Amino acid sequence: MREVAIVGTGMTRFGELWDSSLRDMFAEAALAALKDAGASVLDAIYVGNMSAGGFVKQEHLGPLMADALGMSGVPAVRVESACASGGVALRTALFEVASGASDIVLAAGVEKMTDGADVTDVLAMAADQETEAYHGITFPGLYAMIARAHMEKHGTTEKDLAEVTVKNHRHGALNPKAQFRREVTVEQVLASSHVAEPLRLLHCSPVSDGAAAVLLCPLDRAKEFTKNPVKILASGMATSSLALADREDPAFLDAVHRSAERAYAMAGVGPGEIQVAEVHDCFSIAEICCTEALGLVERGRGGEAARSGDTALGGRIPVNTSGGLKSKGHPVGATGIAQAIEICDQLRGAAGDRQVKDAKIGLCQNMGGSGASSVVHILGRI
Amino acid sequence: MREVAIVGTGMTRFGELWDSSLRDMFAEAALAALKDAGASVLDAIYVGNMSAGGFVKQEHLGPLMADALGMSGVPAVRVESACASGGVALRTALFEVASGASDIVLAAGVEKMTDGADVTDVLAMAADQETEAYHGITFPGLYAMIARAHMEKHGTTEKDLAEVTVKNHRHGALNPKAQFRREVTVEQVLASSHVAEPLRLLHCSPVSDGAAAVLLCPLDRAKEFTKNPVKILASGMATSSLALADREDPAFLDAVHRSAERAYAMAGVGPGEIQVAEVHDCFSIAEICCTEALGLVERGRGGEAARSGDTALGGRIPVNTSGGLKSKGHPVGATGIAQAIEICDQLRGAAGDRQVKDAKIGLCQNMGGSGASSVVHILGRI
Repeated sequence: MREVAIVGTGMTRFGELWDSSLRDMFAEAALAALKDAGASVLDAIYVGNMSAGGFVKQEHLGPLMADALGMSGVPAVRVESACASGGVALRTALFEVASGASDIVLAAGVEKMTDGADVTDVLAMAADQETEAYHGITFPGLYAMIARAHMEKHGTTEKDLAEVTVKNHRHGALNPKAQFRREVTVEQVLASSHVAEPLRLLHCSPVSDGAAAVLLCPLDRAKEFTKNPVKILASGMATSSLALADREDPAFLDAVHRSAERAYAMAGVGPGEIQVAEVHDCFSIAEICCTEALGLVERGRGGEAARSGDTALGGRIPVNTSGGLKSKGHPVGATGIAQAIEICDQLRGAAGDRQVKDAKIGLCQNMGGSGASSVVHILGRI
Repeated sequence: MREVAIVGTGMTRFGELWDSSLRDMFAEAALAALKDAGASVLDAIYVGNMSAGGFVKQEHLGPLMADALGMSGVPAVRVESACASGGVALRTALFEVASGASDIVLAAGVEKMTDGADVTDVLAMAADQETEAYHGITFPGLYAMIARAHMEKHGTTEKDLAEVTVKNHRHGALNPKAQFRREVTVEQVLASSHVAEPLRLLHCSPVSDGAAAVLLCPLDRAKEFTKNPVKILASGMATSSLALADREDPAFLDAVHRSAERAYAMAGVGPGEIQVAEVHDCFSIAEICCTEALGLVERGRGGEAARSGDTALGGRIPVNTSGGLKSKGHPVGATGIAQAIEICDQLRGAAGDRQVKDAKIGLCQNMGGSGASSVVHILGRI
């Protein structure tokens, strides 16, 4: 594989962006990434998006977005893996550049969730329709079952779940792009209403609009575009059964584990060498399960890690310095790209108040459904 | 780019397959492709699908289909470009193998359209929602406008349109996988009811269920799997504005033209060297426009080519020997892969009664929306 770098990044603020349409947000993020790299021509575009069909009755985002950039003609493809659509856009764009077929490729993600659709109903299409969604399961319900299984097996408590929320809001309060720029306390989390027991409102990521984009090129051309490119050291992906009931251990996200194993092998680094990580905390229990499956935290100790400050800024392995999905927001198709941008910012020393000192290697992990698909990228400072 | 071959193919019959679910059809096609190649392990899966969300409320097809094959764990991604989703699946799978990241990759397409959804409404999501679909435009309406523009500019007649249908039904009658295995006459076409003037029922491809799959590997490993691999000589893609009204000339499909130019350049062959072609005849006017944009037929003479027998089996350049979308059926996400299978069969000498004698180079062209995205692959016998 030809080596590939990220040479530009751009994203919208995440939130309820009622003044911006799907194409408005995409163009804002994509043009910011192009400007960041001083680039004006693209060989191809990948658009990560979960369900613009469900949310705003729009499929076929490739040509729509190429046109919105004033680049009609450029090959443009939408890729989807539910909430991991952004991570998959980065992966497919990587392969196109790595193959030598193209040089300058945009990997972007976008989702417009606040335009009137029944969000819970649309998101449920990421679960198994025939064995889960049809019977009324929702994603808070699925992750509540994962939380119960983790509590039973490892003694994780409701307070542990709250600690993840508190940490991520503390990080997100420092992020100008975050949907919720405010801290919360453990007491506030534990006093918020139940959504699906044991998960409370403040254990759940919000419904968000937003877009994010990164520009890729061959590593040997990176300096044409930026003084501080970021090298893509590895991309790992794995799937698991779509239906939660078909997994051996609902408290262990096997697709996350396998995707990480593949990425570590490709990069030639181990979890101990990761200095900063963005992981998929769609619910606070998800961060606990993901940090364990990634090997960043010992199995069964994800709750303890949040409680002890291990995964906070200044801790042993800072996780979700952006605020994570919980505080930064979760426009589902955009999330995987926004994670990569946070890691790029950390490696470029551009993370401001959230900077992890001298970060050289970072990881981002993006997940679909109840963990049925997972994509891990490992990025490195050059 | 590393050279890549197709070493196995498989597909379901196309039609109203009321006994088969989305995953049933996918598994049938994919397992047939694996069996054809004698393969049992995959490195990755690409699933081309336009809108399982709209048709059967199921997104996240990657892990669902990996699991349906008994291969849970394998990286699996859905790609979408409306009715060009199959072509895009082949293209993205090609890049993954060409990059060296993976060796054995399945490119498949599937669509379940007859399960009760409002098909016209779902398909309209391939048009521009804000400027077209919201205001009531349908795809028969869009292609009727393209037909009117072509008639006005080039003198194409309703009888020319009918000749395309008659030819493709004659071909499809020879195809055991086709939805409509029967011939029709010009008189029958011209007596069928108007759907959107000047397009009549028999100018329109049907609503279909179906799946198709091809297995890719590096060219230098192809002989491990089959005696007669097919080499992928080129992949070209292009977009145009999503909304028809934004195009300079609605009768000329510029995305098709550009995607073909890119593919011809990559393969180092010209349109005169193509011996057999599958093109995207979602409506009979589309075949006329596509053959012209591909350079297979002189501009403005697409109607004449059908009338004269130039594009029929036994003619100068046989087009849609499979029966095309019109007679074989058009399960939208599967179509691009089914086209590639027909060309593989022709190059392998396995097309039975539809065989084009001694075909060495073939082309398949798959299109999304009213021509806003187009993917061209050129395949060669080894």
